[in-house]
Amino acid sequence: MSTIFTKIINGEIPCYKIAEDENHIAILDAMPLVEGHTLVIPKKEVDLIFDLESEEFKNLWAFAQDVAKKVGKAIPCIRVGVAVVGIEVPHAHIHLVPLNSMQDLNFGNERLKLSPEQYREIQDKIVNQ
Amino acid sequence: MSTIFTKIINGEIPCYKIAEDENHIAILDAMPLVEGHTLVIPKKEVDLIFDLESEEFKNLWAFAQDVAKKVGKAIPCIRVGVAVVGIEVPHAHIHLVPLNSMQDLNFGNERLKLSPEQYREIQDKIVNQ
Repeated sequence: MSTIFTKIINGEIPCYKIAEDENHIAILDAMPLVEGHTLVIPKKEVDLIFDLESEEFKNLWAFAQDVAKKVGKAIPCIRVGVAVVGIEVPHAHIHLVPLNSMQDLNFGNERLKLSPEQYREIQDKIVNQ
Repeated sequence: MSTIFTKIINGEIPCYKIAEDENHIAILDAMPLVEGHTLVIPKKEVDLIFDLESEEFKNLWAFAQDVAKKVGKAIPCIRVGVAVVGIEVPHAHIHLVPLNSMQDLNFGNERLKLSPEQYREIQDKIVNQ
């Protein structure tokens, strides 16, 4: 069975897309810790990120670097934090989280509830960097 | 002034070293969230990880991948999590944290207090993978 991320990649589930290339996609997190919380996902369906082949792994991070720079320019923050946890969805993904304090990266925090308009505004800001 | 990590790299401050090459070092975190919590640090003193040159950035993650595989084999966990926060030390570093639950990656958690013997035992386990 496809993961939720594969369904997003295949267009079966809608998303707010930030960037895409042949092997990767970046989307806004549907349960964001903060505004601009973005997921970077390899199209290859692999559970553990460290199980990617060395080249795939490096290319994923190179893609994430480009996305993170855009997020950091678009969203007011002191830096863009990174997390890979992935216990909930068995398809490797990188969280890019604009941080204003260390606690912004706490996955126990309550998630933001954004309207479609808010999501589209954030998406536009990041994409148009 | 050198960062604490540069002092560790230069041997001015002791550490429990896990791995090292020309451009990177991996050490046990001195304030671990869990046993096996490891830091991967570029020797180049840069504050924001995404400011590394593209090749430097990819090579850092390649080095981290090798270290993470060893940590994951050495320490009982369901996966090795990743975090980059870096608000406290202005020298980019990657946290590799053996996870048994999502909350193991919460930097607000109380840190473990380990004895030198415990550190050395964990270091040996990881290094000898």
